[in-house]
Amino acid sequence: MPVGTAGAVKGVLPSLLEETATEIILANTYHLMLRPGVDAVQRIGGLHRLMAWNRPILTDSGGYQVFSLSELTRVDDEGVEFSSHVDGARVHLNAEIATDIQCRLGADIIMCFDECTPFPVDPGRLEAAVRRTIAWARRCKAAHEHFAETQNVASLLFGIVQGGIDPELRRRCAGQIVDIGFDGYAIGGLSVGEGHNNTMSTVELTAPLLPHERPRYLMGVGMPVDILAAVQAGVDMFDCVLPTRNGRNAFAFTEQGPVRLRNSVHADSAEPVEAGCDCCGCRHFTRGAIRHFFNCGEMLGPILLSLHNIRFYQRLMSNIREHIERGDFAAWAVGQMQSYTWTDNS
Amino acid sequence: MPVGTAGAVKGVLPSLLEETATEIILANTYHLMLRPGVDAVQRIGGLHRLMAWNRPILTDSGGYQVFSLSELTRVDDEGVEFSSHVDGARVHLNAEIATDIQCRLGADIIMCFDECTPFPVDPGRLEAAVRRTIAWARRCKAAHEHFAETQNVASLLFGIVQGGIDPELRRRCAGQIVDIGFDGYAIGGLSVGEGHNNTMSTVELTAPLLPHERPRYLMGVGMPVDILAAVQAGVDMFDCVLPTRNGRNAFAFTEQGPVRLRNSVHADSAEPVEAGCDCCGCRHFTRGAIRHFFNCGEMLGPILLSLHNIRFYQRLMSNIREHIERGDFAAWAVGQMQSYTWTDNS
Repeated sequence: MPVGTAGAVKGVLPSLLEETATEIILANTYHLMLRPGVDAVQRIGGLHRLMAWNRPILTDSGGYQVFSLSELTRVDDEGVEFSSHVDGARVHLNAEIATDIQCRLGADIIMCFDECTPFPVDPGRLEAAVRRTIAWARRCKAAHEHFAETQNVASLLFGIVQGGIDPELRRRCAGQIVDIGFDGYAIGGLSVGEGHNNTMSTVELTAPLLPHERPRYLMGVGMPVDILAAVQAGVDMFDCVLPTRNGRNAFAFTEQGPVRLRNSVHADSAEPVEAGCDCCGCRHFTRGAIRHFFNCGEMLGPILLSLHNIRFYQRLMSNIREHIERGDFAAWAVGQMQSYTWTDNS
Repeated sequence: MPVGTAGAVKGVLPSLLEETATEIILANTYHLMLRPGVDAVQRIGGLHRLMAWNRPILTDSGGYQVFSLSELTRVDDEGVEFSSHVDGARVHLNAEIATDIQCRLGADIIMCFDECTPFPVDPGRLEAAVRRTIAWARRCKAAHEHFAETQNVASLLFGIVQGGIDPELRRRCAGQIVDIGFDGYAIGGLSVGEGHNNTMSTVELTAPLLPHERPRYLMGVGMPVDILAAVQAGVDMFDCVLPTRNGRNAFAFTEQGPVRLRNSVHADSAEPVEAGCDCCGCRHFTRGAIRHFFNCGEMLGPILLSLHNIRFYQRLMSNIREHIERGDFAAWAVGQMQSYTWTDNS
């Protein structure tokens, strides 16, 4: 899922996003509730209308952003209070409010409100976060059922497993979240600085604890090599800002390794960013032209590389699905992971 | 002609530009010669390849920018020297160099190198500028013929009439430029602060002095009301940054008047920017969404309004052509000009 934080995948028109074979996008409840606000989104006609996106949208619950971006003024079992980064206003968020907001935005998949811990974290705080995440998941499910019944609106609700890199807490959290029962399950609280090996050992431990017949979603991950390893562990869904954020910074993902378009080696290049790529940038523009656009601060640079990187990721996911269906994913992934090791030092 | 100063119509992909019914765009020789440089453009594959634009491109000669943007270090009958705004390097430009650069860029229509004067201007300087513009036009024509013969490249060369708002100088310049003989003729040196009435009286004087059977091009103009008046005077072609520059500043042109998308009145609006408009912004996005994008600094705001404004201008030009063919342009234009008087106080 490409990320449309504030209701737009940065620089990418929906018609062009469809051309990348993107099937679903993510939008951030935290950003949208602060600006333009859920009432404004409803008056505009809902999140799909705001974004002019007719395919599915998943919203996160705001939990990650509240705990990582905002100035918290209160955290307890009831919920949290924080200061808005837009205007400093005090904002209240809890399981019921986060669920209500996501339902009112009109998302197709909504996420439970959870407590996301940093890395490293005090063991006591981690355990409390797991306890709250479980209790809040129960409240989210009730709020979601209530909303679905009273408003006659159908959306899917996903539970989130927390627990840092502690195997015992991950096991306990996964068991209880699965017991509550959700339409899909997410592994949250990773890619917060714990490093690739810790991420992967936690994913490999947690994914098999989640029902095989439900979507398993690894939140906020990641580099191509991380995605391949996580799929190997049983993960189905991902969201990540890397394709668009790196694209805006003149970094292109290719099967042959990263291409940094600000590099003067590309100044006179009549080659596409990635030979054989069918994105609109690679079909029509040269590396030399895109480098020139970045040099001049032309918007076309970020636009073209965001589109290319999203297309690169969608092609990766399509290849993954193809090899899973063919039954040779594991063998294929080993070779792929080797060819993507450049991602570690980029 | 939408303006693609540095080799890109800011924020607008070529495929989307084609959808606005744009047939020809303008690029600036001055900007391109400094960055990426004409050698780099040639190695990339020419200006059409750089811009990924397969329809015609007109390049200006650099004259206007040299005299308005750069720090001049020498001006005489031979040519000019100026400091590059990119790296301070001393750059030499004259009739032969400007013609050679435009031919090498691969433009379809190239412009004579001219001396553009500010407003107001000392009469002696204005007369010298007209004298040089005529002498340089003769040299540009010879250089263009030489290039066409030796390089076997076909492009059209347009002459430019200067003379400020002095009727006698405009008459003299037009007569001599027409005597030299060009594929088309431009009226330059206007929209530099002389005001609407001076612009229009000069256009009304000059346009009829140019051959009826050749394209007549008013450079750097303008607002819808200016375009309607200039067409009435006999002008066929225009270039202007207003559609894209105003679009980037949240200003939308509509037949009902300007719409300023930062205005809070649009916060909850589910209406399109202009009802009935077939641009991709108006077809898919609400005013409320576009206002939100500008509020958040999302690129989609400038992208969508640039596209809308270009489409607005192309629709205006299409309507003009239709009424000319129908034979009722003059009567129709009077009504149109009244409905566009808002452009004066916007």
